[in-house]
Amino acid sequence: MRAVQVVGYHQDLQMTEIEKPEVKGPWDVLVKVGGAGVCRTDLHILEGQWEPKTHVPLPYTIGHENAGWVEAVGSAVTNVKEGDKVILHPLITCGLCRACRSGDDVHCVNSAFPGIDTNGGYAEYLLTSARSTVKIDDSLEPSDVAALADAGLTAYHAAAKAAKKLTPRDKVVVIGAGGLGHIGIQVLRSLSPAEIIVVDRNPDAAKLAQSIGAHHAVVGDGTQVDQVLELTGGNGAEAIIDFVGEGGATAEGVRMLRRAGDYYVVGYGENIDVPTIDIISTEINFIGNLVGSYNDLQDLMALAAQGAVTLHTQKYALDDFQSAITDLDNGKVRGRAILVP
Amino acid sequence: MRAVQVVGYHQDLQMTEIEKPEVKGPWDVLVKVGGAGVCRTDLHILEGQWEPKTHVPLPYTIGHENAGWVEAVGSAVTNVKEGDKVILHPLITCGLCRACRSGDDVHCVNSAFPGIDTNGGYAEYLLTSARSTVKIDDSLEPSDVAALADAGLTAYHAAAKAAKKLTPRDKVVVIGAGGLGHIGIQVLRSLSPAEIIVVDRNPDAAKLAQSIGAHHAVVGDGTQVDQVLELTGGNGAEAIIDFVGEGGATAEGVRMLRRAGDYYVVGYGENIDVPTIDIISTEINFIGNLVGSYNDLQDLMALAAQGAVTLHTQKYALDDFQSAITDLDNGKVRGRAILVP
Amino acid sequence: MRAVQVVGYHQDLQMTEIEKPEVKGPWDVLVKVGGAGVCRTDLHILEGQWEPKTHVPLPYTIGHENAGWVEAVGSAVTNVKEGDKVILHPLITCGLCRACRSGDDVHCVNSAFPGIDTNGGYAEYLLTSARSTVKIDDSLEPSDVAALADAGLTAYHAAAKAAKKLTPRDKVVVIGAGGLGHIGIQVLRSLSPAEIIVVDRNPDAAKLAQSIGAHHAVVGDGTQVDQVLELTGGNGAEAIIDFVGEGGATAEGVRMLRRAGDYYVVGYGENIDVPTIDIISTEINFIGNLVGSYNDLQDLMALAAQGAVTLHTQKYALDDFQSAITDLDNGKVRGRAILVP
Amino acid sequence: MRAVQVVGYHQDLQMTEIEKPEVKGPWDVLVKVGGAGVCRTDLHILEGQWEPKTHVPLPYTIGHENAGWVEAVGSAVTNVKEGDKVILHPLITCGLCRACRSGDDVHCVNSAFPGIDTNGGYAEYLLTSARSTVKIDDSLEPSDVAALADAGLTAYHAAAKAAKKLTPRDKVVVIGAGGLGHIGIQVLRSLSPAEIIVVDRNPDAAKLAQSIGAHHAVVGDGTQVDQVLELTGGNGAEAIIDFVGEGGATAEGVRMLRRAGDYYVVGYGENIDVPTIDIISTEINFIGNLVGSYNDLQDLMALAAQGAVTLHTQKYALDDFQSAITDLDNGKVRGRAILVP
Repeated sequence: MRAVQVVGYHQDLQMTEIEKPEVKGPWDVLVKVGGAGVCRTDLHILEGQWEPKTHVPLPYTIGHENAGWVEAVGSAVTNVKEGDKVILHPLITCGLCRACRSGDDVHCVNSAFPGIDTNGGYAEYLLTSARSTVKIDDSLEPSDVAALADAGLTAYHAAAKAAKKLTPRDKVVVIGAGGLGHIGIQVLRSLSPAEIIVVDRNPDAAKLAQSIGAHHAVVGDGTQVDQVLELTGGNGAEAIIDFVGEGGATAEGVRMLRRAGDYYVVGYGENIDVPTIDIISTEINFIGNLVGSYNDLQDLMALAAQGAVTLHTQKYALDDFQSAITDLDNGKVRGRAILVP
Repeated sequence: MRAVQVVGYHQDLQMTEIEKPEVKGPWDVLVKVGGAGVCRTDLHILEGQWEPKTHVPLPYTIGHENAGWVEAVGSAVTNVKEGDKVILHPLITCGLCRACRSGDDVHCVNSAFPGIDTNGGYAEYLLTSARSTVKIDDSLEPSDVAALADAGLTAYHAAAKAAKKLTPRDKVVVIGAGGLGHIGIQVLRSLSPAEIIVVDRNPDAAKLAQSIGAHHAVVGDGTQVDQVLELTGGNGAEAIIDFVGEGGATAEGVRMLRRAGDYYVVGYGENIDVPTIDIISTEINFIGNLVGSYNDLQDLMALAAQGAVTLHTQKYALDDFQSAITDLDNGKVRGRAILVP
Repeated sequence: MRAVQVVGYHQDLQMTEIEKPEVKGPWDVLVKVGGAGVCRTDLHILEGQWEPKTHVPLPYTIGHENAGWVEAVGSAVTNVKEGDKVILHPLITCGLCRACRSGDDVHCVNSAFPGIDTNGGYAEYLLTSARSTVKIDDSLEPSDVAALADAGLTAYHAAAKAAKKLTPRDKVVVIGAGGLGHIGIQVLRSLSPAEIIVVDRNPDAAKLAQSIGAHHAVVGDGTQVDQVLELTGGNGAEAIIDFVGEGGATAEGVRMLRRAGDYYVVGYGENIDVPTIDIISTEINFIGNLVGSYNDLQDLMALAAQGAVTLHTQKYALDDFQSAITDLDNGKVRGRAILVP
Repeated sequence: MRAVQVVGYHQDLQMTEIEKPEVKGPWDVLVKVGGAGVCRTDLHILEGQWEPKTHVPLPYTIGHENAGWVEAVGSAVTNVKEGDKVILHPLITCGLCRACRSGDDVHCVNSAFPGIDTNGGYAEYLLTSARSTVKIDDSLEPSDVAALADAGLTAYHAAAKAAKKLTPRDKVVVIGAGGLGHIGIQVLRSLSPAEIIVVDRNPDAAKLAQSIGAHHAVVGDGTQVDQVLELTGGNGAEAIIDFVGEGGATAEGVRMLRRAGDYYVVGYGENIDVPTIDIISTEINFIGNLVGSYNDLQDLMALAAQGAVTLHTQKYALDDFQSAITDLDNGKVRGRAILVP
């Protein structure tokens, strides 16, 4: 089958003919790829940034946001069957460690990550596990939802965690209305009655945010902290979800936070650097957020089936993988680039 | 009545004869002071550190950790009556704001703080509110429990919050086995089945910690992170309660924390300064902790009545206030200094 | 001022001229009534059903669902001021007992209930407490929201409790789409992403339910259990909110409930009568629901201000109180009858 | 190998030589049985009570409370290895359904139950799954802990659920201090600071309850409701854990429950039969409880390793199975009968 592989760092990806993977173990699931998201992480992999962490042997197939159709299943698989439309959780988890047994499988002590440390989805077929396979609604297409598998799932996880505590009287600030923030706003709108205030430096992104459910959009022009304080009666918001995490976002975000409020860290780059006396005297919390669990992905797909969460995509044939990569690198992708084998 | 007052900053406290306060409003409670804790904060007040925050007019009576007997109550008071033994929550709260209506009265938007911004308890009598008054068990004496009103309550609040999530398989690290840590360990032991690891630079404090319930005591000699990692199977603990918050404690504490763990900030001094990528990739949380609520104080007094939480005290007559202050400043107080009028 | 009073049981209510109440205590709030809901409970009071419970001395002013404008406040009132539009929590609570201090004021051990055991709102003015007074949004009118004070608040409380556990993959059955169910559906729609299935014997009520947000409406024609099972893949729903509680509703409702599901009891009349072996082998829960707390009423008013919860009302002048009572008794009120002084 | 099998209903169990099971699948775990609990359910199986539910083909090996040593593991097993001492969760679960993925594996839609519907542990070896295998501490012996696998796990599950909500000011009533109640009391003592009141008709059981941690023991002599009310200030307890569920226990238990309290149903036999008006006016809850999850068993084994939960056992050689069955049937077993192969 055809697969797009990393053959060296600081080199272009390469289309190769490799053997089609086969179902061997009883929990194996072979998926015919219907869509593979092209993510900024893929650019970082090519720059060699992930090599020191994964030591993945080259060549290997890249692509960690995948959806498609079940082609074959192992003998013990009961949750999906041949022909099912599916989206794939980014991790293959062991199912036996304490984290896995608690529904918190993202912290599995024994996981693999297709596209990052083993063969991924820029290919015709991908081998994964029944534990990573989520059946999607008939109304959804793999190439439309593939990017929800990782970027969307991260946004869902943080927004759903925040929504658990938000009430009709609360206000939540979303910092950054880009790829993740965009999903986060839609999730908050579905899961919580709180008033949503979006902050983004880009006026177009701010405007878009309102069209998908934000109650207020604040353009980050230097006055954003004051604007948020004004929108929150001078008190700050009960929750901040920070999808940026760099360029001074966290210091500003903390100033937008109410006493006893929660600061959800999602984007990254700079340090959280806050005096402990400020943390204790206002009793604020900083909540870390990784990608969502298998259950989160199931929930997100339920929202997608309701039409409550949608994603703009720009599709490329698998053979045009280089155009997708180049467009992404040049900032020419609107929404999310998807390879369609 | 006699009262010990702040008459100027960088000056000694002064014993004065002032008018005995009177019950006026329906929620007023007049308390005959039975014990007033002498706290390091009192030294800071005299150094003028709190003046810029409180602008309290001088002279005023100092003392914010108080217990005693109810002398008189206003017409609407139903929770205590004349003669009751009581401990006083440090804040006088409004009862009407959202925080007060949610049991989270520490975040009251309209509170007073006797001993800090209004007359406190280094005196024969103290005027407070029914909302701040907790009846204590017959078996307890005001002069024994007074210091639980603030220092103890802060430790209870953080330890009880941590205990809510701790299970029999979890491990919790207590950094600092001094005044607060000492209470925190006893609270953890009563409220949770988790294994308790105490870290303190002082070998005596570490030893004491084990005698009051800690399962392991680690002396902070430079190898403490490694020792904690060894005691936690190399993974770190599910929770850290940091009663120190300075001198490098937080950076060390974060290294002792397990993936998806919670870092409870109680002590203060330095900054929490952690890369956002570390926060998200391990999905850890930083939880701020202020003094406990009125409900927390009720719960802590229930533990004290059971004998589950005790405090070492060193008592002084009210007239000997200067000795207490001087002893505290010179590190000559073992446990907690208490003024007994 | 004019007030409509109970002068005897099995007798008509009577319009009387009584003295206008006055603010005396510091927490008192005098409200000029803008709307008073006419409730089926008022009919039961006249039939003498409540007398054995309340022993309220006659005559007294009836009316327990009230909203209006603040006319005067006591010296300690900080949450509302003269001229504010307000809705009134049905209970006047003490603010000092454990329940009140925990935000769970409905279980106050020392409460009064205007319209039931003390003077209520079928009158020009009503005396209440700052603890019962919720300021409403400028966009809302007292006569439009008055009925949310009790009936609406009960529905909110149950629906919000259920919503806390409901996820995008869950299904919730609402039994009864009348006055309370009507509000419950709107609240569920705002607070949860779950699929809502309404069951009502009245096809018009079922149809109305869909127009306000229910995803499915099942007419209770004897096949309702089978229909719900079919809509839930044969498994039953994760939650049932039963606003009926009589005529066999509970036995049917239990059959619609999934393993590990929650049955919210709101309506009443018959017994919950279920074998313990069924409760343990399916691990289901029965959750009692009383009227909501002060915080619930604040939250409900936030939803009302968003336009997310609306109520159909039929208004009567205060002088026409007898028509309102008669119309209600004869089933001629659509939505909720409101007296407007 | 030797195995004790059901060969017909209303017939004696029979020792047979059958083939030793073998590891075939990658998650299989073969356990050399070290102890098998003899349970009242085993008597019911022989009376044919379970046949209509399980349709298990005869003959098959009985015994559903098992512990031992790992003899062999499948290729994918990472949580235990040959030689490990283990206790077995009573269910073999699929690991793929929503319940399994949420840590709530007891509600697995595709489970098997060794000893009930497939071969169990009255034998030299038992085949189970890695998902059912919990490694136990070196200090514990399989024959000592085997009975914690089912009876103990049920008690743990209910007590731990209750403990999550119990505070130092709360009171909890345990109805029934027999096999399950005995464990429940020890678990409550470890996990919660609440005051424990035990009610049992047997004065010896009541006395024993106090020796293992109950604060009060009430003998069920007809005055038990009044005694509990007196111990709870006339209000009733915040939680009731009912390990009896028959002979009028539930009606009495409800009278011992405080407003807004929780009634945990564990024992079974009679109906919960309570007017809905009582449920809503006091806002009480009835909480169903099945056997605990795999995580619960891990937690319980952590408590056992701490020495916090112990069990009295009476041991029999596997060949003496008939004596164990007969003794149990004649009420001659103190604590729990265990077969030791």
